[in-house]
This record gives sequence, C-alpha cells and structure tokens, in this order.
Amino acid sequence: MNQTAPLESPMSPLFDTLAIVGVGLLGGSVARAAKQRGLVRRVIGVGRNAARLEAARSAEVIDLAETSLAAAASQSDLVIFATPVDHIALGVRETAAACRPGTILTDVGSTKGQLCRELSTGLPDAVTFIGSHPLAGSEKQGWEHSLADLFDGRVCVVTPVDTQSARTPQRSDAIARLTTFWQRIGMTVIELSPEAHDRALAQTSHLPHVVASALARTLEESNRPFAATGFADTTRIAAGDPNVWVPILLDNSAAILASLEDYSKQLQSFRDALTSRDAEALRRLWEHGKAIRDSIRIRRVAD
Amino acid sequence: MNQTAPLESPMSPLFDTLAIVGVGLLGGSVARAAKQRGLVRRVIGVGRNAARLEAARSAEVIDLAETSLAAAASQSDLVIFATPVDHIALGVRETAAACRPGTILTDVGSTKGQLCRELSTGLPDAVTFIGSHPLAGSEKQGWEHSLADLFDGRVCVVTPVDTQSARTPQRSDAIARLTTFWQRIGMTVIELSPEAHDRALAQTSHLPHVVASALARTLEESNRPFAATGFADTTRIAAGDPNVWVPILLDNSAAILASLEDYSKQLQSFRDALTSRDAEALRRLWEHGKAIRDSIRIRRVAD
Repeated sequence: MNQTAPLESPMSPLFDTLAIVGVGLLGGSVARAAKQRGLVRRVIGVGRNAARLEAARSAEVIDLAETSLAAAASQSDLVIFATPVDHIALGVRETAAACRPGTILTDVGSTKGQLCRELSTGLPDAVTFIGSHPLAGSEKQGWEHSLADLFDGRVCVVTPVDTQSARTPQRSDAIARLTTFWQRIGMTVIELSPEAHDRALAQTSHLPHVVASALARTLEESNRPFAATGFADTTRIAAGDPNVWVPILLDNSAAILASLEDYSKQLQSFRDALTSRDAEALRRLWEHGKAIRDSIRIRRVAD
Repeated sequence: MNQTAPLESPMSPLFDTLAIVGVGLLGGSVARAAKQRGLVRRVIGVGRNAARLEAARSAEVIDLAETSLAAAASQSDLVIFATPVDHIALGVRETAAACRPGTILTDVGSTKGQLCRELSTGLPDAVTFIGSHPLAGSEKQGWEHSLADLFDGRVCVVTPVDTQSARTPQRSDAIARLTTFWQRIGMTVIELSPEAHDRALAQTSHLPHVVASALARTLEESNRPFAATGFADTTRIAAGDPNVWVPILLDNSAAILASLEDYSKQLQSFRDALTSRDAEALRRLWEHGKAIRDSIRIRRVAD
C-alpha cells in the first residue's frame, strides 16, 4: 500500500481532453466531477446509443458525444472505461491502436487481476494502461443519477502490474498523473497489485453482493409485507445491474469462493450459538460484529 | 391476515393517559407520534434512569417522568412496553396488578410467540394485553434519535392469541382500539397469530440481522479501507444494541435456524455457479434476487 500526495496546484487542468467510454452512473459522475473541478478542458462521451449520449450532452454531463471509440481516442489525453468489466479489455486494445502517443488509459472496473494481466502486453509502446477502481457507486443505473461529488471522500485503488522499482519513466509519470486526477476529484488513492485488489474487494464488495442477493432470494412472497428497512438495506445492492455484476462475480470467482468460506464459518458460529441457545456466545458474536461495523465510517452523498 | 379500517374520527383523543415503558428510540418515537397526532392527552415516560427520563421530559418527548411502573400504571389507559423483549413479560405482570379496570397493555417487541403465550393467562380479568410489533426502527439508540414520523407508512403487526370468533367483547374492543391507535400514527395494521408473526419476522428481520453480523465479522482489519457503501449498507443493522438483539435471537432461535437453512441453500446455489463458472446460472440467480429486491418499497424517514 502506498498513498501519494497531489502533484500539481488545484487550479491547472491536468488533461486537455478526457474520453469517458460508457456514460452511465459511474462514467457520468467522473465526467461531472472532472468538469466541475476544472481537471480537463472537455469531455467526450463514448457509447453505442447515440440518442442516450446526445441526451447526456444536452444535460451537460459531457461536452461531445461520439459513437466511434477510435475517433474519440484519437483526440484524447486520458481515456476512462466505465463499461462492464467483460467489455474493457477489448475496448482498451481498440482504443490504444487509435491513440496519440502519451495517452493514458484507465478504467473504473471492480475486478483488476485478469484485466491488468491481459493488458500488460500487446499495447502500443507510446500509450499506457493503468487499472483504477474508485470505490463509489450505486445500485442505480444511467447518467441521470450521476453526481459530481460521488467520489468525494472515498478511496480509489490504482493497480499497476509492475512494482515501483521496475517502472519506466513513462509508466511512473502516467501513474502519478492518474493518481493526481483521482485525488483532485476528492479521493484518497491507494496503490495495490491487481491480485491484492481482487482479494480485498472479494471480501468488501463482491461477497456482500452475493450475501445480499442470496438474502433477497430467501424472502417468500407472502412475507414481503413484513420486510422493513433492515431487510431493505441489507439487500440494497442485490438490485444492481446484472450486466455489471455477473461479469464481476465470474471474473473474481476464486477469491469470492474463498471469502464465502470465511463467511460460512461466521454463519456456522451463529448457528451453533442459536442451536445451543447460548446467550453468552451469541452476545460475544454480536458485540464483535457490532464493533467492526461501528469502526466503518463512509461519507454519504445525497441522492 | 386481516386489515382493519380506522374506527374513530382523526381528531378525538383515543386515550387519556399513555404510559411508555422504556423511553428509547422506539418508545420516544411512539410518544412523539401519539402527542403530535393528538391521540392522547398526556404521555408518562417510565424508566429506571431518572436523569435520562427528566431530559426526555425537558425535550418534550414525554409529559411526565416516572421511575415507578406501578405509579405510572395506576394513572394510565394504555401502557406500551418498549423495553428489550426479555424484560416485557415481567413488566406487564407487575403493571397489570396496578392498573385500573379497562387498561390496555401492549408492547413493541420483535418476537411475539413466547411473550404472548406467557401472558395469555394469569393477568387480572379487567386488563387486556395484546402484542404489537410496529415494523420500524433504527440501529441508533436513545430518545434523542426518536422521530414523530418513524411509523408513518409502515406496517404494524398486532398478534392476539385468540381467533376473532373466540374473543370476549372486552378483548375485541381492546384490539379495535389498539388497531386504531397504530393506524392513526400512520401504520397499516395486519393481524397475525404470534407464531405466524415469529416465522415471518425470522425471515424478514432476524435472519438479516444474523447475515449482517456474520458479514461484518468476516471483514479483516487490513481490508477496512476498501469497505464502501455496499459493505456499509449490507451490515448496517449489525450495529444494533446487543441488549435488544441477543434476546430477540434467543427468543426466536428455532424459526431463525429454519430461515438460516433456506438462506444457506441460496448461498450454495451461488457457490455452485461460481465453482462451475456458469454465467447463465449466475445471471438467473442474480436476476431473481434483483426482481425480489426491486419489488420492495419502503418509505424512508430523514435521520
């Protein structure tokens, strides 16, 4: 882990042109945040649905709408992929071939190991791909729900495949500029290897999604009137987009299975205490869980 | 299930004096709601901590503070217990002995079977105990977090031990007045047997609490920086008061264990799909969970 301080003054634009590939909730929020903070001169939104893109342009989420990845890439200094994780690798290769020298490419995907390994070879020398994962989001979909302050106060994991000592000056510079970009939209940047990222996120995000979805599936229809805020909050993330979440779960299945084993042991401890009606054991379990939960502080944005 | 319409006009007070035993988040919210809607002339708050009670009185959450259960009971027309579930039965017996004829006693506890069975005999003939469970709450503690609109738009389960045809006129009248009380603080009242209530709530509330606590306990300390809103929401209810939750889990352990079995089968389905990397199976599981979660609509109160 390695936390880096900002490189430049808060006022200078970091990049001339930013392309956002996939202008949904996350992509739209990156666009709004970068524009609001003056980090880029203009944002090109890239997507397949010209009407949706044009609407995002009218709403001033982006400055230009472009359905051709290569056309957008050739004009951009930073390209950020905010598509489902199973679409990123191919998109990056297509984009990289069209980029000017010096262009930096990154993504906001929730899994990093397979993607970063796949993109560690075969890209043109003059462009650099570095994985990013800003830890912010919502179960909502679409740029209409995007927020300029979605990332404020949150953590962004940056996942270079190489260690600091093995880096070329070009890669070191790209990592520094990318780190500054995320910092200047309000995030604390932590550097991890792609594999360490995937193990950590299996536990903090992917397992909770499986837990929430399995809990939602346990609810019988006749009991729906008796579901209140506790049930609603515990299952909120089960409402996520399947096009986003199925690829993440598949991509990180090994680490998620390992986390599921740890979780099953915790459930078994509760089962044992309930079966033996052991009040003291239940209290110890509960108080430990509460202490961990109480230690987590997340800044909320209004939605 | 049986939904009943209000009996009286919205303006007439339903009870002269309401005693709230346990002026915490729930008890304080009932007091505020009843006062704000003019359902009672005055509210007596009952508790052991005189200083805390006096502070609640100063804040106008209650009108009178009383540390003697018997003294409060002898002046009240409706007594609502908002203490942890393992303190209710004894409190009701002590109170009932001091009540005037016609007094109605209820509670807001999350388990009903054992309590309602225990109180189905041995109370003075002239007083009536009927179990209630307003499905609203918070992981927060203390009357400082109480809200007059906590119950607005929510469900309240009323759990008489006897069926409608077997009821005395006194009990029918008490159930009708209690139903009207909950309706007039904004709730939809559903009548269930205590046992049916406990089976339903095992699935919709008690299981989610176990799931959330076990998930919180799975988080390794080194991974805490990577916990974001998904983890925070999925584990929110793990922060509940152990004095409230350990007795609930113990009290309803059999139904919770049955729900845990159902839940474990759902987890196993995910485990199988992840192990075989079966994208189609994962998508079916995810989409089913999402459809169930999307069907749940809960009104939120600002906090």
